[in-house]
Amino acid sequence: MLDQASNFTKIREEDISFFSELLHDRCKHDKENLEKYSHDETEDLIFYPAIVLIPINTDEISKILRYCNEHHIPVTPAGARTGLSGGALPIFGGVLLSTEKLNKIIAIDEENHQVTTEPGVITQDLQNAVKAKGLFYPPDPASRGSCFIGGNVAENSGGPKAVKYGVTNEYVLNLEIVLADGSIIWTGANVIKNATGYNLTQLIVGSEGTLGIVSKIVLKLRTHPTHDMLMLVPFFDASDACKAVSEIFRAGIVPSGLEFMENDALRLAQNFTQDYSISVTKNHEAHLLVEVDGFDPEKLMEECEQILSVLEKFETDEILFADSEAQKQTLWNLRRKVGEAVKAFSTYKEEDTVVPRYHLPDLLEHVKKIGAKYGFDSVCYGHAGDGNLHVNILKGELSASKWNKELPNAIKELFIEVVKLGGTISGEHGIGLVQKPYMPIAFPEVTLQLMRSIKSSFDPNGILNPGKIF
Amino acid sequence: MLDQASNFTKIREEDISFFSELLHDRCKHDKENLEKYSHDETEDLIFYPAIVLIPINTDEISKILRYCNEHHIPVTPAGARTGLSGGALPIFGGVLLSTEKLNKIIAIDEENHQVTTEPGVITQDLQNAVKAKGLFYPPDPASRGSCFIGGNVAENSGGPKAVKYGVTNEYVLNLEIVLADGSIIWTGANVIKNATGYNLTQLIVGSEGTLGIVSKIVLKLRTHPTHDMLMLVPFFDASDACKAVSEIFRAGIVPSGLEFMENDALRLAQNFTQDYSISVTKNHEAHLLVEVDGFDPEKLMEECEQILSVLEKFETDEILFADSEAQKQTLWNLRRKVGEAVKAFSTYKEEDTVVPRYHLPDLLEHVKKIGAKYGFDSVCYGHAGDGNLHVNILKGELSASKWNKELPNAIKELFIEVVKLGGTISGEHGIGLVQKPYMPIAFPEVTLQLMRSIKSSFDPNGILNPGKIF
Repeated sequence: MLDQASNFTKIREEDISFFSELLHDRCKHDKENLEKYSHDETEDLIFYPAIVLIPINTDEISKILRYCNEHHIPVTPAGARTGLSGGALPIFGGVLLSTEKLNKIIAIDEENHQVTTEPGVITQDLQNAVKAKGLFYPPDPASRGSCFIGGNVAENSGGPKAVKYGVTNEYVLNLEIVLADGSIIWTGANVIKNATGYNLTQLIVGSEGTLGIVSKIVLKLRTHPTHDMLMLVPFFDASDACKAVSEIFRAGIVPSGLEFMENDALRLAQNFTQDYSISVTKNHEAHLLVEVDGFDPEKLMEECEQILSVLEKFETDEILFADSEAQKQTLWNLRRKVGEAVKAFSTYKEEDTVVPRYHLPDLLEHVKKIGAKYGFDSVCYGHAGDGNLHVNILKGELSASKWNKELPNAIKELFIEVVKLGGTISGEHGIGLVQKPYMPIAFPEVTLQLMRSIKSSFDPNGILNPGKIF
Repeated sequence: MLDQASNFTKIREEDISFFSELLHDRCKHDKENLEKYSHDETEDLIFYPAIVLIPINTDEISKILRYCNEHHIPVTPAGARTGLSGGALPIFGGVLLSTEKLNKIIAIDEENHQVTTEPGVITQDLQNAVKAKGLFYPPDPASRGSCFIGGNVAENSGGPKAVKYGVTNEYVLNLEIVLADGSIIWTGANVIKNATGYNLTQLIVGSEGTLGIVSKIVLKLRTHPTHDMLMLVPFFDASDACKAVSEIFRAGIVPSGLEFMENDALRLAQNFTQDYSISVTKNHEAHLLVEVDGFDPEKLMEECEQILSVLEKFETDEILFADSEAQKQTLWNLRRKVGEAVKAFSTYKEEDTVVPRYHLPDLLEHVKKIGAKYGFDSVCYGHAGDGNLHVNILKGELSASKWNKELPNAIKELFIEVVKLGGTISGEHGIGLVQKPYMPIAFPEVTLQLMRSIKSSFDPNGILNPGKIF
C-alpha cells in the first residue's frame, strides 16, 4: 500500500485552481466537507480526501479524470457512502468524486421495459418512479432508502428480493462509463441479449469503481407484481431454520424473500427501532421471514400452504402472517434495521459469507465453532434463500489485542470453510478495503494476477479507487 | 490477419510427436480428419487445421496449451461446430482442439439446483438429464440436439426460451478454464450471488474461446415447469406481427417463447422437413409462434386468453392452438429447422441483429428497404420477444461481384440502423470470423482497444482462437 502511495502526487494549489475553475462551488476542500466525505458505513474507518469534487455530468467527470490521470492524482468515486466494505474510502487522500449531483432519472422506457438513469439516484426513488408505471426494479439492499443505484452497480448489490429476482448485475443492460484517461464509452447495447464482443458491462458491475466511473445506467425492468404475502416463522433450533430454507426450494417454491435472523438479531432490531409489536421469546433461536409475491392472490395462498406443509417437518412456534400493509412494513423494517442495530450496540466486524444454500446449516455451525474457539459472540442474519449469511462479530469483552491480532485469523478460518463449501467471501457487500486481505483465500495468485492485469488495461496509472479489491 | 499469421510457428514433426505421445490416437492429422474439422455451420467456409487434438480431461488441455504457448502455435477450440459466425474455424491452421470427449455430466446437485458438467455434453442431453430430476436448464438454441453446452457458453447462446428465462450467461455460476499458459483456474464460486473481485465468469461467457478454454461448467437450474401451451398466429401484415410482440409484453404477459417467422421462412421449413400438416397461405405475411409455460394449466389458459385479447387489435387469420404434444413438436420443429432450410435452399448470409423489442417493426422495415436498394431478397425470422431478428440474405440471382463487393456495404448500412435503434450486431451467434469487420459499428476504437488489451492480459502470445472477434 505504501508502495502504491508513492506513485501518487499530492494535491497542489494549482490542482485546486483547476478543479475550482471547472466546478466552482462543487469543488470543496474545507474541513467540514473533508470530514463529511471521510467515511462510509464500514465499521469506524476514516480516511480524509484532499479535495471533494461534485460533477453534474459525464463531461465534467471526463475532465476530472483526464486531469488526474495526467497528474497521477488518486480518484475515489463515492455514491451515498452506505457501503460496508470501505469501497468509497479515499485511503490515499486525493480526489473524492461524489456522484450525488448526477441524480436524474433520464428516461423510463415503458415500451421496452427499461430505465436509463444517472448513478446518484437513490435506489428506492428509482423503484418508486418505475413502480408508478407498473414496472419493477427488484434489487433492494437494506439501505435502499439512502444508497445510490450507482453504488449498487459498483458493488453488485443484492437484498432480500435477490432470491427470486436476482442481484443488480442481472438488470444492468448497458453502462456509460468514463475511463481513467477521460474517454467516455458505452459498454454494451440496450438489448436483453448480446453476443457482441467481451461483456464489458458485466466486468464493470461489481468492479467497485476501480475500472471506470459509471455515469449512466440502463436497467431492465419487470412488470410489478400486484400481491404479496409475508410470514414470520419462529424456530426453536437455528439449524432447523437453515435446513427449512432449502426444503422450501426443493418443494418447487421460489419465495420473493427468505430471510434468516438469529434471536439476537431480531431483538437488537427491536431495541434499535423501539418497535416491540412482534413477540420474540428467548427460546426462539432463529426466525425465517418468508415472502411470496405474484399477480394472483389465490396462487399465493396456495404457495403459503405449501410452505406451511414444508415447515410442519420442523419444530416451529406459532407462525405470524402479516395481516396488514402496516404489519408487513413492521416486519421488513425490523429485518432491514438489523445491520444498523448491531452497529449501534457494539463495535463489530461484518462478514458477508455466501455458500450454496443447502450448506447454510454447515456454515452457521462453522461460525459458532470458530466463535467458541476464539471467544467471540456473533449475530447472524441474512439472505438465507441465496445462502448469503451476514456474520456480525461482536467485540464485546474481547481485548484490543485479541480483536486486532487474533480476529483476522478467525475470519481467515471462517472464509476457508466457506470456500470449502463451494462459497465465497462476499455475496453482496464487495471486497473494498476491509476484505482485501482475504482475497487469496477466494482466488489463487494466478487469478488475482489476471484481475490486476485487467485493472492495468483499464487504468494503467492506477488512479481509480486505488488500494481496493487487491 | 497476415501480420498475425507471421507470429505463429508452423506445426513441425517434433510437435506432432509431442502431441501423439500425449494423446495417442486422439491426435489426428490424416486428410479425412483435417477435412472433417475444417468447417462449422457458417456459410460454406473451410479452413484446414494442421492437426486435430481431442483431450479427455483438463490436465491434457493444460499440457496442450502450455506447449502451444511456448511454441507459438495457434489453438482453435471447437465444440460441436454448429456455430454460425465461424468461431470454431482454424483460420491460421495450427491446432484444432475438440472438446468432444469432455462429455460427462459430472454432478447434478438437486439440493442446490445446480449442475456441473464438462463442455462437450450436447445441450439437449444436459436438459434431459436434469429434467429427469425435475430441474430445468432453459437456454435452448435451435441446434440444441447437436450443439455442446461449452459452445453455448463460448457464444452466450440464446434460443426461444430466452425471452422468459434469459440466455446462457444468466445460468453460468462458475467456470473452470485453462489459460493460454496452461494454468487452470476457477473463475468464481458455486453461488447465486457473488461480489468477490471482478466477474471473470461473465467475461469468459461469450468470449468465443479467445481468453481461455472452458473445461468445466457450473450452471444454475430452475424447477421444471409442468405445463405449456402453444399457438401459431398468422398475420396478413408482417409489421403487425412485430407490433403485436411488444403489445403482448405491455399487457404484463411474459411468454416462454415468442417467435417471428416470415412467410418464406415457414414455407422453406415445410419444404425442408416435408411436413405440410400446418396450412400456410401466401397472404400470411408472417406468423408468431407463442408459448406460455408454468405450473398451473388454468393460469396458462388465462394467459392465452389475455394474449388473444391483445391479438384482437390486429388483423390475424385463424389461430392454431396445438392440441397435442405431437402438434407442439411439429410447430417447434418447423421453427427450429428454418435455419437449415434456408441454408439448403440458397447461398445466404445470416445476420443476427438485435434491438429493443419495441423497435422490431422499424428493424424489419430497414431490412426490406436496404434489400430493395441493393437488390437482395431476405428471409427473416427469430426471437421476436427478445428483439432478436435473424436476417437471412439470399444470394438468389445476385452476381458474384454484387454478392462479394456490394453486400458488405448493405450489411454495414443495416448494422448502422440497428445501432441507432439502441441495438447491436449479434444477439446470440457471436462475432467469430464473419462479423468481425463490422465490430467498429458496434464499438468505437477506444472500446475495441480495451477488449484487445483484456485479450492480451489473458493470452499475451495471442495463441487462443486467433483472428476472431477483432
